[in-house]
Amino acid sequence: MSFGEPLKIGSTIGILGGGQLGRMLALRAAELGFDVHIYDPEPDCPAGRVAARCISAPWDDLAALRDFASHVDVITFEFENVPHESLSHLAALKPVRPSQKSLEQTQDRVIEKTFINGLGLATASYAPIIDVEDLTQAAEDVGFPAILKTNRFGYDGRGQVRIKTEADLIAAWEGLDQVACVLEGFVDFVCEVSVVLARSQSGATQIYDCVRNVHKAGILHTSHVPSGLSDELEAAARSAAQQIADALGHIGVLAVEFFVTPQGDLVVNEIAPRVHNSGHWTQDGCITCQFEQHIRAVALWPLADPARHSLAMTMQNLIGSEINTVPTLIADPNVSLHLYAKRSARPSRKMGHFTRVKRVALGVK
Amino acid sequence: MSFGEPLKIGSTIGILGGGQLGRMLALRAAELGFDVHIYDPEPDCPAGRVAARCISAPWDDLAALRDFASHVDVITFEFENVPHESLSHLAALKPVRPSQKSLEQTQDRVIEKTFINGLGLATASYAPIIDVEDLTQAAEDVGFPAILKTNRFGYDGRGQVRIKTEADLIAAWEGLDQVACVLEGFVDFVCEVSVVLARSQSGATQIYDCVRNVHKAGILHTSHVPSGLSDELEAAARSAAQQIADALGHIGVLAVEFFVTPQGDLVVNEIAPRVHNSGHWTQDGCITCQFEQHIRAVALWPLADPARHSLAMTMQNLIGSEINTVPTLIADPNVSLHLYAKRSARPSRKMGHFTRVKRVALGVK
Repeated sequence: MSFGEPLKIGSTIGILGGGQLGRMLALRAAELGFDVHIYDPEPDCPAGRVAARCISAPWDDLAALRDFASHVDVITFEFENVPHESLSHLAALKPVRPSQKSLEQTQDRVIEKTFINGLGLATASYAPIIDVEDLTQAAEDVGFPAILKTNRFGYDGRGQVRIKTEADLIAAWEGLDQVACVLEGFVDFVCEVSVVLARSQSGATQIYDCVRNVHKAGILHTSHVPSGLSDELEAAARSAAQQIADALGHIGVLAVEFFVTPQGDLVVNEIAPRVHNSGHWTQDGCITCQFEQHIRAVALWPLADPARHSLAMTMQNLIGSEINTVPTLIADPNVSLHLYAKRSARPSRKMGHFTRVKRVALGVK
Repeated sequence: MSFGEPLKIGSTIGILGGGQLGRMLALRAAELGFDVHIYDPEPDCPAGRVAARCISAPWDDLAALRDFASHVDVITFEFENVPHESLSHLAALKPVRPSQKSLEQTQDRVIEKTFINGLGLATASYAPIIDVEDLTQAAEDVGFPAILKTNRFGYDGRGQVRIKTEADLIAAWEGLDQVACVLEGFVDFVCEVSVVLARSQSGATQIYDCVRNVHKAGILHTSHVPSGLSDELEAAARSAAQQIADALGHIGVLAVEFFVTPQGDLVVNEIAPRVHNSGHWTQDGCITCQFEQHIRAVALWPLADPARHSLAMTMQNLIGSEINTVPTLIADPNVSLHLYAKRSARPSRKMGHFTRVKRVALGVK
């Protein structure tokens, strides 16, 4: 593998996707003196309004993609569902980091689970469902209760249905328009945790403190640091995440979500080959946040210090109408607030987040 | 005085001036979900590239100023030398915060010193020089050594000449094109410190830890926190800064620079009615940085926690060709870097800054 050169000061970074993750990436890139161009089908997207340029065009507009690529020095993305063809087209024109391997292994739930199991790491039991004949076999292999998930393009609990019987399964699959799915066995867990790390081209890795996550209705609600895991389990989670990032040859930030079973085992739930909601606390709790680490990694700049500077943090999302609590939140001096500048607060839409930080008593002036 | 309403979520903040201070204000405004419009005569200015809109027009272009005002909800500025007429024009159209009083008392060195002395606070001895007849009297009143400064529009040591004799004084004043000047007596000092605070419309004030500053060639070079001042002197500096902000009815961030004399007295050097270079450390060292506090104040949102979260910080500017040290700085994991995206590195131009943070040993996972 040949190594690229670090991006020059003042270079331009192209970001695919202009939602809140693209916006927060753009803001940190700007702190490092980079210009940012955004590509997103949505005009007036949150990231476009903090970028030097925003191209609004469909993902399959090859001329727009070429235009985008011709004005940037490196391309990255805020989400793993960028169409494969768009990315291939761009990768022929400019470096794309992380590379397509990181996407290929994580865009498709069956491929992802096969990859994870191949590393000797546990996942839920699962069975692919491509056509109607697969339903009975899947029910037999996985058992109930289970969760039916679309194989691709799911996020924040969308494209997921809980299943208790084979009749449920048939109905649910029809409700999902009979697209390719995976039936996952239900994992009994005491908590969910995640590890966010950054990995550079050279393989150097910086891992953030493990996070304990609480979901509501399939969407991340709160993240807590420290996680409360034992040292041993936290070390195992960090090690598993590192193993996954190394196997992908990942460049950039990557998050791994785990279930912790009552027996104290770790089961990998999902890999996100990008900055992740459960890493948002790092903006307010760490020397260097996940967004800056990602920009450094894709710029081929060395990673910086991910250490936590405060005792404890809780990050909480503002979903849909929870944005209406902002007047209360801004009056609380212990709240650090981040809003995403989305024009309307649809239900289950992430509108912002906030952290509460428990500071160290410095005991010095 | 009637109080305004807090800015609504997703409002637009207009910033006059698109340099690094405008850029860092814009980035923090974006974190709070605001849109930002920049007004700066310079096309391609640093802040314009992180804003939703940038108007490049001269300060006296009334149509452009009207256009700017008509698309924003509140107007603020990154520097105190915005022409008075432009600001009056804008203030008739939209709220401008801080108000003109903060500028009127600080744009002109003679007015500023009169204002400070009027509060019972010490300044250097000084004498105004308007025409040639004033030179002898000023020399007599102030004595030598002294510093001749242009009365307005000076920054970063520009428009300042050290004076040892009356012949020096005459030559220097001619060198400054005989504009209105002030002759300031030289203050013998052991160190220079500054206090940065934020004050809200209601008068609530949050004051950052005092900073010890080292200048080189008239430009701030490094800022150190803690300052090393005695508790008593630090309290006096904070109290003086608060007194100044209150007397101005200031809304937003304000910085006061002091000399500390060998006798342990404080002498006010300058007031900056805006975010200040000696407050840049707060980005990496505090729960809430000066840029966010300023945005909160001008949005009429409550101020947040200014507390320091780490033991000690040193902030250092990157001036001119010092930008070439960036490859070394980014390889140091203890350095937090901020670059301003200026297109060329002219001598004595501020290109960026970095902090080194001494963290607390958490002693916990």
